[in-house]
Amino acid sequence: MSPDDSFRRHRAIDVRIPRETSSDPHTPLGAGPEFDAIRRMLERWGPRARRVGDDAAVIRSISEHPIVVSTDTSVENVHFHRDWLSSEEIGYRATAAALSDLAAMGARPLGIVVSLTVPGSWRSEFDGLTDGIGNAAASVGASILGGDTTRGSELSLTITVLGTAHTVLLRSSAKPGDNVYVTGRLGGPLAALRDLQSGRNPSAENRQRFVAPVPRIEEAVWLGENGATSAIDISDGLAAELGHLAAASRVRITVRLENLPVVEGSSPLDAAGSGEEYELVVTSPSAIDTREFAKKFNLELTKIGDVASGAGVVMTLNGEPAALPPGYLHFTE
Amino acid sequence: MSPDDSFRRHRAIDVRIPRETSSDPHTPLGAGPEFDAIRRMLERWGPRARRVGDDAAVIRSISEHPIVVSTDTSVENVHFHRDWLSSEEIGYRATAAALSDLAAMGARPLGIVVSLTVPGSWRSEFDGLTDGIGNAAASVGASILGGDTTRGSELSLTITVLGTAHTVLLRSSAKPGDNVYVTGRLGGPLAALRDLQSGRNPSAENRQRFVAPVPRIEEAVWLGENGATSAIDISDGLAAELGHLAAASRVRITVRLENLPVVEGSSPLDAAGSGEEYELVVTSPSAIDTREFAKKFNLELTKIGDVASGAGVVMTLNGEPAALPPGYLHFTE
Repeated sequence: MSPDDSFRRHRAIDVRIPRETSSDPHTPLGAGPEFDAIRRMLERWGPRARRVGDDAAVIRSISEHPIVVSTDTSVENVHFHRDWLSSEEIGYRATAAALSDLAAMGARPLGIVVSLTVPGSWRSEFDGLTDGIGNAAASVGASILGGDTTRGSELSLTITVLGTAHTVLLRSSAKPGDNVYVTGRLGGPLAALRDLQSGRNPSAENRQRFVAPVPRIEEAVWLGENGATSAIDISDGLAAELGHLAAASRVRITVRLENLPVVEGSSPLDAAGSGEEYELVVTSPSAIDTREFAKKFNLELTKIGDVASGAGVVMTLNGEPAALPPGYLHFTE
Repeated sequence: MSPDDSFRRHRAIDVRIPRETSSDPHTPLGAGPEFDAIRRMLERWGPRARRVGDDAAVIRSISEHPIVVSTDTSVENVHFHRDWLSSEEIGYRATAAALSDLAAMGARPLGIVVSLTVPGSWRSEFDGLTDGIGNAAASVGASILGGDTTRGSELSLTITVLGTAHTVLLRSSAKPGDNVYVTGRLGGPLAALRDLQSGRNPSAENRQRFVAPVPRIEEAVWLGENGATSAIDISDGLAAELGHLAAASRVRITVRLENLPVVEGSSPLDAAGSGEEYELVVTSPSAIDTREFAKKFNLELTKIGDVASGAGVVMTLNGEPAALPPGYLHFTE
């Protein structure tokens, strides 16, 4: 990349045409260093990006299902530290975090649009960032539709995700009497963050949970097909997300913390305050077959509480009211 | 905004439901300073933003036409200087520039998604930025679908735009024999930029062209309905954009610079190198009624050249080959 890049190249996709039938995957680009940078990105992304090169991407959806769109920005020293993550991990993590919002809506990805602000000191890491973005997109079958790259004084990644949902899972659909479930085991990212902040090496498992979150796309679609009516993904910590869900649905949510599935070495309180988990919380009026879910996705699904009329979140630990200590959130706070 | 905001709130729209029928326009938000900031933005945006508050926006399009998506980032000291523009102008300009990409595709806006990175030194300008974004969106009837806001060390605005197009105008559709047209008069932004860089006051007209670009949305739709088959918007300067168009369509474009419509005081060469115009260049196999266009939109449409087989851009001035001096581009380069 040259220091004065400012480009935006987009892709036109037509989901009616199989990928293999297109002989020229992209719109031919003009000359210049900015286009050399795009060509380099496209080369690294390979078939993950296609028909880039116009003013905007065109999505000719054959689906009658709603389109879902969300955007998520990751900024150096706000959302990540250079010392903690490789450039590929930074790209992967920013992209996976954005894609997790599609899971929270019960949507499968159509594709992503990538905006990168890259300072001179990061230029040598451009390929790593590119690879991480491409790998995260590929992990859930999302195409790269296009984007914009510019210089700036701090590294910043804004990933906009588009998807379609058969069953849209809103935050506002929880009803009194619903069951509350969470996917996976919580606490890993907070444990990793504490270790990193203290100069210790996190366990491999906790580090993986922190650097490579998994957007629970197929899990969310299955949950929507099997009774779930509302969902949210855990970016700010379980307790905070339950608060958002309760506010949006105008209900009270009660959680028994002793039922929380936690990673080894994590307490229930830690797990409830651990951010950037990107696991899902869903509510369902009917009981969901957690065993079938676990078998299908090799991932736990645990009932952790109930929805009642009222407002707010009530957490108990072994029958006693529990409150999270302040400051139990994630790196961005 | 608190210094540690990091939120994302989105809107669900259903274009089948008239706006007036919704009694509660947004999903209820939880407590906390970040949500206070969102509430403040939503209050300022009023009916321009609706159903914000979920993990993602939901677009239930009744249209069978393709969805078009593009993203555009504006960074302080790369795309604008604080001394030159008010905060409202910065928000307006970034949003209008992004929306111009919809025009370049012949698309009408569905809505925009806003990602803001706001340093502490800009926090007092938050309302102005919000207003500018809202006003630019409203200028073309685009709803604000949601977004993400975070702190950071430099002000950055990433505006992602979504639209639908009946007739998609690609860069790659120009054919030998086509006519080449441009909307409006060129040269204003470059003249304003030169004045600003030299510490002079630009003329009111030139300043307006620089700070408040007009996305030519309805003009583009009309052009698509009246014969235009390819289009590009002028962000990097006419000469550069013609190069992109020629490369994408694998054609040669010839332009007679003496035919360029220029603002008062601008030379044809200046006008051909003036960036951030956000006027449209279109090609059409048939002649377009420029008089009807001018009458309908109170804006000039001028035939400036032709498409031939071959490659690249040939510009002549009074019959002699003309070349732009280097450095004739826009602020970002």
